[in-house]
Amino acid sequence: MDNDEFRRQAHELVDWMADYLATLEERPVKSRVEPGSIAEMLPEAGPESGEDMNDVFADFREIILPGMTHWQHPMFMAYFPANSSYPSVLAEMLTATLGAQCMSWETSPAAAELEGRVVSWLRDWLGLPDDFEGVIQDTASTATLCALLSARERATGFKINEQGFEGRRFAIYCSTEAHSSIEKDVRIAGFGSSALRKIPVDDDFAMRPRALAECIEADRAEGVTPLCVIAALGTTSSTAIDPIDAIGEICREQDVWLHVDAAYAGTALLLPEFRWMLGSGESVDSFVVNPHKWMATNFDCTAYYVRDAESLVRTFDIQPEYLRTRVDTQVRNYRDWGIQLGRRFRALKLWFVMRSFGRSGLQAMIRRHIEYGQWLVDTIDNHPSFERLAPAPLNCVCFRWLPANTKDEAAIERANRKLLSQIQDDGRLYITHTRLAGRYALRLVPGQTRVERGHVEAAWALIEETARDLAAA
Amino acid sequence: MDNDEFRRQAHELVDWMADYLATLEERPVKSRVEPGSIAEMLPEAGPESGEDMNDVFADFREIILPGMTHWQHPMFMAYFPANSSYPSVLAEMLTATLGAQCMSWETSPAAAELEGRVVSWLRDWLGLPDDFEGVIQDTASTATLCALLSARERATGFKINEQGFEGRRFAIYCSTEAHSSIEKDVRIAGFGSSALRKIPVDDDFAMRPRALAECIEADRAEGVTPLCVIAALGTTSSTAIDPIDAIGEICREQDVWLHVDAAYAGTALLLPEFRWMLGSGESVDSFVVNPHKWMATNFDCTAYYVRDAESLVRTFDIQPEYLRTRVDTQVRNYRDWGIQLGRRFRALKLWFVMRSFGRSGLQAMIRRHIEYGQWLVDTIDNHPSFERLAPAPLNCVCFRWLPANTKDEAAIERANRKLLSQIQDDGRLYITHTRLAGRYALRLVPGQTRVERGHVEAAWALIEETARDLAAA
Ligand SMILES: Cc1ncc(COP(=O)(O)O)c(C=O)c1O
Ligand SMILES: Cc1ncc(COP(=O)(O)O)c(C=O)c1O
Repeated sequence: MDNDEFRRQAHELVDWMADYLATLEERPVKSRVEPGSIAEMLPEAGPESGEDMNDVFADFREIILPGMTHWQHPMFMAYFPANSSYPSVLAEMLTATLGAQCMSWETSPAAAELEGRVVSWLRDWLGLPDDFEGVIQDTASTATLCALLSARERATGFKINEQGFEGRRFAIYCSTEAHSSIEKDVRIAGFGSSALRKIPVDDDFAMRPRALAECIEADRAEGVTPLCVIAALGTTSSTAIDPIDAIGEICREQDVWLHVDAAYAGTALLLPEFRWMLGSGESVDSFVVNPHKWMATNFDCTAYYVRDAESLVRTFDIQPEYLRTRVDTQVRNYRDWGIQLGRRFRALKLWFVMRSFGRSGLQAMIRRHIEYGQWLVDTIDNHPSFERLAPAPLNCVCFRWLPANTKDEAAIERANRKLLSQIQDDGRLYITHTRLAGRYALRLVPGQTRVERGHVEAAWALIEETARDLAAA
Repeated sequence: MDNDEFRRQAHELVDWMADYLATLEERPVKSRVEPGSIAEMLPEAGPESGEDMNDVFADFREIILPGMTHWQHPMFMAYFPANSSYPSVLAEMLTATLGAQCMSWETSPAAAELEGRVVSWLRDWLGLPDDFEGVIQDTASTATLCALLSARERATGFKINEQGFEGRRFAIYCSTEAHSSIEKDVRIAGFGSSALRKIPVDDDFAMRPRALAECIEADRAEGVTPLCVIAALGTTSSTAIDPIDAIGEICREQDVWLHVDAAYAGTALLLPEFRWMLGSGESVDSFVVNPHKWMATNFDCTAYYVRDAESLVRTFDIQPEYLRTRVDTQVRNYRDWGIQLGRRFRALKLWFVMRSFGRSGLQAMIRRHIEYGQWLVDTIDNHPSFERLAPAPLNCVCFRWLPANTKDEAAIERANRKLLSQIQDDGRLYITHTRLAGRYALRLVPGQTRVERGHVEAAWALIEETARDLAAA
């Protein structure tokens, strides 16, 4: 492909992209293909000779697209969103074109310095303490792994990096509602799942600080070193907010690293009225939020903040000769701020988004989403056949259907499973489920960049109607 | 920004993108900005209100661009390349637009099935054993971490995941020339650097299998469990090829996991005449290659292959309720094939590249690059004032200048440092350095997608001329 052909194809793609985004609602949000059906349409061997881009693009439209679930569809109310936005897509076009690999300052100076700037803009917008330093990483999974590793190394004088565990025993704490990536990270870092204490939660699904304190003390009594508490600012099932200040006090007393996992809900810190979620933030050692979830920035884009940046860098820093540059002592080489060597130029899209929306534009979007969530809360709370299963401080609403004359828990669960299947198979709305205090819960998050009140109303109407039909059947 | 504005801006960007790629050579390949100078031009706080995209784009061109080193410039001969290509950029535009998060089959069925297909196309093109199963990851750093973790878990009956190290001692082996990401991974996984045995290399900088065998035996004798050997198919300093078959035999005898790090040079396996590098491949347990380096596919795109996929999945698999889907037993959920939960739709660009180039197109590109490398080898070998410092089986050429009347090693190093600084400051050519057998070496890799014979000749002319000027000064 030559430059002219690229230009022609790229213009054609742009029209397709704009059309796709304008007409998303005409597609089912959730793909209804059967396992194996897409693979069947793809040849088992790659082509010997180059193919025409028109054919490739046609196959993209005809084979791939019908098999995609559309994450940018306003009726995507499943999981947590992975939102993009127009400015973010524009930035990704440039990022792909530059194709810069941003491991070191020297290999892309402007990318490194822009990254420093945008993470500090975001820190200030979120009201994080201003001695936090930030870095953009790929995911919350890896950012939390960074937190665990820095905690591990700082607590041992950077000895495990050198000597391994040597029989030392540690404990890490999170609530029973914490995200599965935490347990995965605990395993990766060599602690073993048995080092992870899942602290009980209160009726709101938030960690009980008293139980945490007791658990830490019990560990100390047994010669286990309490290492790190991972508090959730917005759990995955129900956006429960762990009491950060109370937990922080315990961590300070006990000299334990406090990491805050605010992957999704952290974006709501953009709103002054939600700053209470973080408390004073004084005792927090590290903090992760995903602009790639609720802040209109294409996946992947995770902002990781740490107070003691030196311990982070010391955890990861290895300087082979072939990576040395003449300016290493004057600059930040972000490869030493995370797991991977190679790094995409992720700061560009965050910059485009923050400038194009402005702080007030992002605030308006988040407020809108929370309003939809609260509308849903009211609707469910006033509905005779539905029941809410958790507080919904933001816009993640967990509920279940209570079919008439069904009292037994197993039957209620069966009915809700059926309701969810029906909705998922329908294709017009994508929601998922979770389990809260043992109960099977439907889970709806109106947080897509493009979602409007009408979509949320339509979503609720579909749920109600499907339940009614099931009851009548 | 509304859809019309997006369409308009995206068309404008496409023209800029095509112009940029067509006129790359008019720019200095390496940015010459001073540390801090870009940050100085960026405000310390983000904007309260949204800004016009024209202003953002203007700042991109005026502030960011001059501070970028251009990785897609044909005179980028530093490090290993991180190549893109026209079809890859087109695919990235679509990926950004779809904004799909590919953690599970259900969240993007076509992406999962396309991923399965393209990794098996690539496996076959590279001549890897056909019982290998593949997955696309972000970087070789994380893929090698996956290999280490699966080896750790398989060898312990998945016990470290559960119980931690409990005093068990392991050893991991690589050569003294292995990439720094390996030591970083060894630390992350909790082994400690002291568990990493750096096996000496021969005169060609390839691992000595005899020394490996001895080291493994010495470890066993001391009650240390030999866990994993990481062989390099193309070291970072000089693309040295460790003898995979000989190492594999030792690994089989000793029941040790053999991981092959072919991050860069693995792409040359596309050429039948370079299949010798892998040997039979029979004893290899896992293999990593980065299409994002030498295969015209935008960073990030790493292909990780493993023979015992079950042990990989069992290492990572955690199934919280909120991630369960109805088809989990019928499909591959690639989140269980790596570190991170969230995943970009990376298969699309690899598909675009493989189809648009075809196997023969990629082969032609790689052959061309190797030819340039060999031209450089001949040129240097026939030059009175330059000396080659390592074999160059492909297109990574390590050499140094030998100024007249300079015999002492320190003076030669000083002269070469000066030569490199001069070239890097000039901006027309970007090369880097390394150290081989204690000697400071310049390192030139003509492997950019767009590089042509003329660029390599110009690069050499610049090096020669700069050396001549330095000698005259
Ligand atoms: C041999 C080798 N292995 C691993 C890596 C790390 O690559 P990545 O940035 O994909 O982690 C490199 C990078 O140059 C390399 O040369
Ligand atoms: C609270 C929480 N933490 C962490 C994660 C993991 O996110 P990532 O995919 O960025 O690793 C999620 C994902 O939904 C989450 O909800």
